[in-house]
Amino acid sequence: MATEAELKAAGEKYIPKDYDPALYKLRHSLAHVLAQAVVEKFPQAIPTIGPPIEYGFYYDFDLDVNPTDGDLEWIANRMRQIIKGKHAFKVREVSADEGRAIFKDNPYKLELIDGLTKGKDEYGNEAGSAATITVYQQDTFVDLCRGPHVETTADLDSKGFKIQQVTGSYWRGKSDNKMLKRFHATAWASGDDLKAHLERVEEAARRDHRKLGRELELFANEPIFGSGFPMLLPKGATIRRVLEGFITEYERKAGYQHVFTPDIAKKELYYQSGHLPHYADSMFPFMQMGENPGEEDLVLRPMCCPHHIQVYKSKARSYRDLPIRIAELGNMYRFERSGVVGGLSRVRCMTLNDAHLFVRPDQVKGEIAGVLALMKKAYADLGITEYRFRLSKNADPSGPPSTKYVDNPAMWESSTKMLREVLQESGLPFFEAWNEAAFYGPKIDVQVKDVMGREETLSTIQADQHLPNQFQLEFKDSDDTPKRPVMIHRGVISTMERMTSYLIELHAGAFPVWLAPVQVALVPIGDRHFDFARALTERLVNADFRVEADLSHGRMQAKIRDAAKMKVPYILVIGDKEMEANAVAVRLRDGTDLGQKPVHEFVAMLDKVNASRTLKLVPDA
Amino acid sequence: MATEAELKAAGEKYIPKDYDPALYKLRHSLAHVLAQAVVEKFPQAIPTIGPPIEYGFYYDFDLDVNPTDGDLEWIANRMRQIIKGKHAFKVREVSADEGRAIFKDNPYKLELIDGLTKGKDEYGNEAGSAATITVYQQDTFVDLCRGPHVETTADLDSKGFKIQQVTGSYWRGKSDNKMLKRFHATAWASGDDLKAHLERVEEAARRDHRKLGRELELFANEPIFGSGFPMLLPKGATIRRVLEGFITEYERKAGYQHVFTPDIAKKELYYQSGHLPHYADSMFPFMQMGENPGEEDLVLRPMCCPHHIQVYKSKARSYRDLPIRIAELGNMYRFERSGVVGGLSRVRCMTLNDAHLFVRPDQVKGEIAGVLALMKKAYADLGITEYRFRLSKNADPSGPPSTKYVDNPAMWESSTKMLREVLQESGLPFFEAWNEAAFYGPKIDVQVKDVMGREETLSTIQADQHLPNQFQLEFKDSDDTPKRPVMIHRGVISTMERMTSYLIELHAGAFPVWLAPVQVALVPIGDRHFDFARALTERLVNADFRVEADLSHGRMQAKIRDAAKMKVPYILVIGDKEMEANAVAVRLRDGTDLGQKPVHEFVAMLDKVNASRTLKLVPDA
Repeated sequence: MATEAELKAAGEKYIPKDYDPALYKLRHSLAHVLAQAVVEKFPQAIPTIGPPIEYGFYYDFDLDVNPTDGDLEWIANRMRQIIKGKHAFKVREVSADEGRAIFKDNPYKLELIDGLTKGKDEYGNEAGSAATITVYQQDTFVDLCRGPHVETTADLDSKGFKIQQVTGSYWRGKSDNKMLKRFHATAWASGDDLKAHLERVEEAARRDHRKLGRELELFANEPIFGSGFPMLLPKGATIRRVLEGFITEYERKAGYQHVFTPDIAKKELYYQSGHLPHYADSMFPFMQMGENPGEEDLVLRPMCCPHHIQVYKSKARSYRDLPIRIAELGNMYRFERSGVVGGLSRVRCMTLNDAHLFVRPDQVKGEIAGVLALMKKAYADLGITEYRFRLSKNADPSGPPSTKYVDNPAMWESSTKMLREVLQESGLPFFEAWNEAAFYGPKIDVQVKDVMGREETLSTIQADQHLPNQFQLEFKDSDDTPKRPVMIHRGVISTMERMTSYLIELHAGAFPVWLAPVQVALVPIGDRHFDFARALTERLVNADFRVEADLSHGRMQAKIRDAAKMKVPYILVIGDKEMEANAVAVRLRDGTDLGQKPVHEFVAMLDKVNASRTLKLVPDA
Repeated sequence: MATEAELKAAGEKYIPKDYDPALYKLRHSLAHVLAQAVVEKFPQAIPTIGPPIEYGFYYDFDLDVNPTDGDLEWIANRMRQIIKGKHAFKVREVSADEGRAIFKDNPYKLELIDGLTKGKDEYGNEAGSAATITVYQQDTFVDLCRGPHVETTADLDSKGFKIQQVTGSYWRGKSDNKMLKRFHATAWASGDDLKAHLERVEEAARRDHRKLGRELELFANEPIFGSGFPMLLPKGATIRRVLEGFITEYERKAGYQHVFTPDIAKKELYYQSGHLPHYADSMFPFMQMGENPGEEDLVLRPMCCPHHIQVYKSKARSYRDLPIRIAELGNMYRFERSGVVGGLSRVRCMTLNDAHLFVRPDQVKGEIAGVLALMKKAYADLGITEYRFRLSKNADPSGPPSTKYVDNPAMWESSTKMLREVLQESGLPFFEAWNEAAFYGPKIDVQVKDVMGREETLSTIQADQHLPNQFQLEFKDSDDTPKRPVMIHRGVISTMERMTSYLIELHAGAFPVWLAPVQVALVPIGDRHFDFARALTERLVNADFRVEADLSHGRMQAKIRDAAKMKVPYILVIGDKEMEANAVAVRLRDGTDLGQKPVHEFVAMLDKVNASRTLKLVPDA
């Protein structure tokens, strides 16, 4: 039998790779402390499982009473007492029979022990070989548990956790099973960390793009369109139009050629590309257009790459023509179950700022460097300053074999080497990650964090030698022989949907002037100022600024408040004095009063701020 | 038995409504003259049917030899002789038995007679009641025929027809039947008319958008995308981008609000709108997204109207908010069999310059007038000068009842009256046509003609009181009661696909400067002029002009010819003299030589021509 130290060390393997081990252990330990307090409060409660999760932990009990706020307070106080007791977390290995004896009154633990003997984990999933069965004890509480835990409750901060709520949850997630009570808690290494987390939660709620999307009338999710098909209302559509114009202008000046290719193709195209079967789960159902199934089956495209390949193939190419940079604001369709989609960030149809560069092997590095430069320029305009680079590779060779990636080790090696060298030569700091590649090749992913600290990919640059082979792409080299180009897939400002949701949260709805759906709100004080407001509106709209005049009969202060709530950068109040002076009284959305300015002076300022894409509302002198 | 005059008059009813009766009769008569000549040349030929068609006629024979060019010449000459013989077209009524006796050696005519006795027409389709059987005779040739014909062959012009070709054609279009020989001819009232037609045919071929689309690298139809899904190559995509920017800018300035709504919706949306079943035949197959059929069935949208209705319904509307003008460059999908689609003019997915105006009843006329004004402005910029207005109404009350239109006579009457009054008040000349409405309401259609004189609809304005009812749309009126808005559906510059194909043919590929995919071609004479060309390219591209520099090692004249073939408006030649003077030698695509111009002067001219959207390449002084 193993020693306690050996057992504790063995438990470490259960900590997921990307989880902070210290946080994992303290959350796991606090779950046991909570369970002890719950069974003291409710002796009839039967503990089931209680894992650490993102931001904290939960614990499920078979318990037929609904805990009151007072109960939860009692439990939290009792947890603090237990923590202060400095109890060791002791582990020992038991046989299945010993385990069954210890938990003879707990049918859930008995089911778990049965599973463990059959090589299943605590969720009932296959876990490989039959596991060693261990029990952990702190103070009076014994739990079936694989660990690991902190050494003693002294390692926990009694101010570092907060019980949040109790919800219903079926045993093993199956609605045929009994409904258990799930105690949710957030847990951190210290009271300060907890406070910081709660502030982040509050901030994230304030910036939540679904909430702001509704309040600022940017988009709406109408159930009749089906889940995952948001519609952009006029203000959200303006942001998208401006974003599209912005990035395509940069691309044109960088030598990209834009195309429009169909959102649809025959299924055969995706068999050739390998999307079928590698990507089949994410694709929409086929549509039968011919008389018979299979004769002419169309499908909404999952990606644009096979489409841009058709553009490349539309004429003969010479080494002199390369690089050819084909770009499109392309719709792509992803099959997702209706339960998992929502807002703008997880959708079933997305419009990607997509491009495919067909390049000679000697041009790969230079072209990727060009994409990185374009990306950095675009990010600066959008106000995105914090990001890091990830070299995303195929399946971890030390892990189980994967069918997610095309099987061509030499190709993976050479493509990954290309990307690594570009990153090294660029001097950009980067990290590497397995299991994050596209099915056809490795990627450089640009990672940003949301308010909660969760990382997501905004931009991506991919080196692909697979599709050029599949489609037998060629160019005639200087020696007149046919050669194969490399394809670089790249998205610079991501999908319009994801970028919009990211920018809403980044700027908390207060967009830079050049992106703001309404740039100027006009607040004429009384009816006699309406004509002046109308004339100014026309002047600004004809100069292609985005203006709304509030010609209702509300009070001035209410009109100003409404415009500030909609985060309109400039609010121009117009009264007798202003009309007389052909001026406007300028307020900013944050309440700053810039005072009266002649109209031409305001227009010049607006023009300067807008054209320079600065984040400031008042330009530097 | 009827007299010959009565029989001839009775035959008039077979002339389709929109067919010139004189042309019908002369084409029909020439078909008989051709048949006489054919059976004289090939006595074994068995005549079947020979109807007049657009531009001429054809006649199908059971004939096992392949006529040579010499045979066709003999036949044409013999036809001219017959015409000069001034033979009368004599008609007489026969019984079915008499008919069977006359055509006892012609199994096709016997089948036709059988059909006629059973109420079928000559194509085997149901024609209602059993027809009177008539035979026509000119000279020696007797044919089973319902007429009508000219009085004598003297009414035909012996120079007014041309036999074009002989092709294979199955009897009754069914591939199980025997393959017949179809003689095709074009036929007109005079030799001059024939000549004019042949010139139009030649001109149409020269302007054919499929041919020019290929030559000018505007678009391509890749079979792998499925029929009817063209892709826009970079140059075609540029035209679309410019068109889209152009019309949406006009719309923004006219108070339209643009949105992006999903290309897809649950089928239930179209049951509510009435597209199902009224428009079911044109819709794509459903896509099953849920576990079970019917649970969550999505379909590609046939039109944007029900989608823009969701935008209207996204908030409460007051009489003060109206009119609300919702616009979108919206994709719409039309189910068509793969055989009937092609080019850019008949496609399965089209992007419409769509908008729906939600207006108070008292605003209908003013808003329609606004749309007409917008349309006229846009047409002028596009160079479209010839068009006429059609008031398109529902089913002809004198015809058979139709299920194509929603059944609400009072609504049709009031909507049609609205449109007629707008047209009358506008002073625009217009005509009215039955059976041309949308299923939900009447339309004002703007009709243009192609080179061949065929009319098609480019723009449309529709008054709709059906969908507002179906979706229970409301606004709060000034008296605080809920009222129903009227919807105006309108497309100003049609679909991007149709407008592009129309413009290609209208301008024969030589687009106005503001629309030209490449506006300026640079032709540096030798290598030492390349840097100058590169610098000028960069300058022009940064000013958002569209430029291509030919940096190949070809000869100057060849480079100029290539650019002119691509219909690039300005071709700038750069040699030593030009570099020295910081100038360019300017040639136009039609060959005009404007001589040397300082670069700044050329740029100013280009800017002026481009910004004013003139059709001229050199602005008026």
